[in-house]
Amino acid sequence: MSLIKILEILAILVGAFSGFIEARSKKMDVVGIFIVAFITAFGGGTLRDILLDKRPLFWVTHQEYAILIFLLALVAAPTITAVRKIVSERLIVVADALGLGLFSIVGVAQALEAGMPVFIASMMGVITGIFGGVLRDIVCNEIPMVLRDGRPYAVCSFAGCWMYLLMQKAGVPVDFCMWTSALAISVFRLVTWHRGVRLG
Amino acid sequence: MSLIKILEILAILVGAFSGFIEARSKKMDVVGIFIVAFITAFGGGTLRDILLDKRPLFWVTHQEYAILIFLLALVAAPTITAVRKIVSERLIVVADALGLGLFSIVGVAQALEAGMPVFIASMMGVITGIFGGVLRDIVCNEIPMVLRDGRPYAVCSFAGCWMYLLMQKAGVPVDFCMWTSALAISVFRLVTWHRGVRLG
Amino acid sequence: MSLIKILEILAILVGAFSGFIEARSKKMDVVGIFIVAFITAFGGGTLRDILLDKRPLFWVTHQEYAILIFLLALVAAPTITAVRKIVSERLIVVADALGLGLFSIVGVAQALEAGMPVFIASMMGVITGIFGGVLRDIVCNEIPMVLRDGRPYAVCSFAGCWMYLLMQKAGVPVDFCMWTSALAISVFRLVTWHRGVRLG
Repeated sequence: MSLIKILEILAILVGAFSGFIEARSKKMDVVGIFIVAFITAFGGGTLRDILLDKRPLFWVTHQEYAILIFLLALVAAPTITAVRKIVSERLIVVADALGLGLFSIVGVAQALEAGMPVFIASMMGVITGIFGGVLRDIVCNEIPMVLRDGRPYAVCSFAGCWMYLLMQKAGVPVDFCMWTSALAISVFRLVTWHRGVRLG
Repeated sequence: MSLIKILEILAILVGAFSGFIEARSKKMDVVGIFIVAFITAFGGGTLRDILLDKRPLFWVTHQEYAILIFLLALVAAPTITAVRKIVSERLIVVADALGLGLFSIVGVAQALEAGMPVFIASMMGVITGIFGGVLRDIVCNEIPMVLRDGRPYAVCSFAGCWMYLLMQKAGVPVDFCMWTSALAISVFRLVTWHRGVRLG
Repeated sequence: MSLIKILEILAILVGAFSGFIEARSKKMDVVGIFIVAFITAFGGGTLRDILLDKRPLFWVTHQEYAILIFLLALVAAPTITAVRKIVSERLIVVADALGLGLFSIVGVAQALEAGMPVFIASMMGVITGIFGGVLRDIVCNEIPMVLRDGRPYAVCSFAGCWMYLLMQKAGVPVDFCMWTSALAISVFRLVTWHRGVRLG
């Protein structure tokens, strides 16, 4: 329970951080930075909960996450250039891959619990994993990166969600399914990224 | 029941197809093509269901639609140029007009059933008919075509929704109202398109 | 009850008006003008209600608002240039500041009523106050103005929402909290705007 909490916070921080960077590169003010970070960190999970009609939203029951991003935005505006120098791109990609894995598997598990059919559940996993970044790019007036850069990203999430669904169907204990599938997504993402694999 | 099913699938396919074409013209990868097609085909109905708080969403109870688009996206990526040569623009416009009519009337009927006042019901019809395309264009970083090209499109949907509302008020059997109104929207769209009518 | 009604209508009109102007400057047709005005006027409140899962939506129970904007859009398309000459920019800013104050406080009050924790309630206030404009700019394919122009806007809303939350906690009568906080937001916005204050 403690490890999943740490991973979740890490995933949210990574989402927020990529929001900070994109908002800053668009020369947004501190309010813009906070809002873009917030949308990036919570957008995917919020859309999933709206589609599933699940309330209260997860960031509503955990207001500490929203407060955390608020405080970080106050710090981020003046220091983002310095922070970016310390945090290498490699570290961002690793953290982002962990976030993609965790968010995706949480999404597919919650969709199954809500009684969704399997293909829809796998899509809810992908939506949870990627839509924060899609919304970030829409607000920043860009074509969402995940739709156009040709790198496997949503595909990793999709494959991992099916791995989870199949393992669970095969009777593997749920906890084990979750951890291995989330890890598989992260590894799949990192390996393809590192090798420069491209989609058609 | 069988004819409405065929028309519904046709409408969804047309939506997906216009998503394929726009995603491809933005040089998106196969994942982008699937997501844009999905948003275009189901965006209008999903927004309507969220506004009406209707769950489960229609594409959740019919996962075969989502699977269909998924399979088509796999095929579409390499073959879209060839397909586009076979399918003439005229055919796309006709199919799209049929989709506009069907989706709009389904939207207004469902809104009435959910107890909405009449003007709101007519707007729900328009939203169901046009918002898939609006979301497609937002994701593709364009000003939505329906808002700016000056061709009657939302207007056709709006007029047909009111035709439905008035006929129903006048005691005409519901089935007959639906078919004639949906057809009226399609015909209105095709005639104005063919004659090059423009709004102010 | 009567004064809040007048202010609410004024706020909606101001939102719609800014939608008219932006849609027109993008050369949209009359349908586009209506839809953008509608999204600007009702977008913030609609997003709040979706996040809180509150139905029916406020513009559904008050269809007269939607009809009003519809009629105005019919008038606005040909006359917007003339109207804009009569309505000075100063008047728009004043009306917009009143709208920001009113919408924000309505948002925070409804979120509290729905049992949200305080920080989330303050964010719901800001969302209700600013998201109409954010959605308007997304549909018009711009980076949302509130995120990037460096003027205090969301910040005024945020400060006023906390003023409301603290006063209410201190046992001040709710009515008085609402009016003074909404007024404070408007004044804060107008003073900072007039003095040209900028955020970092």
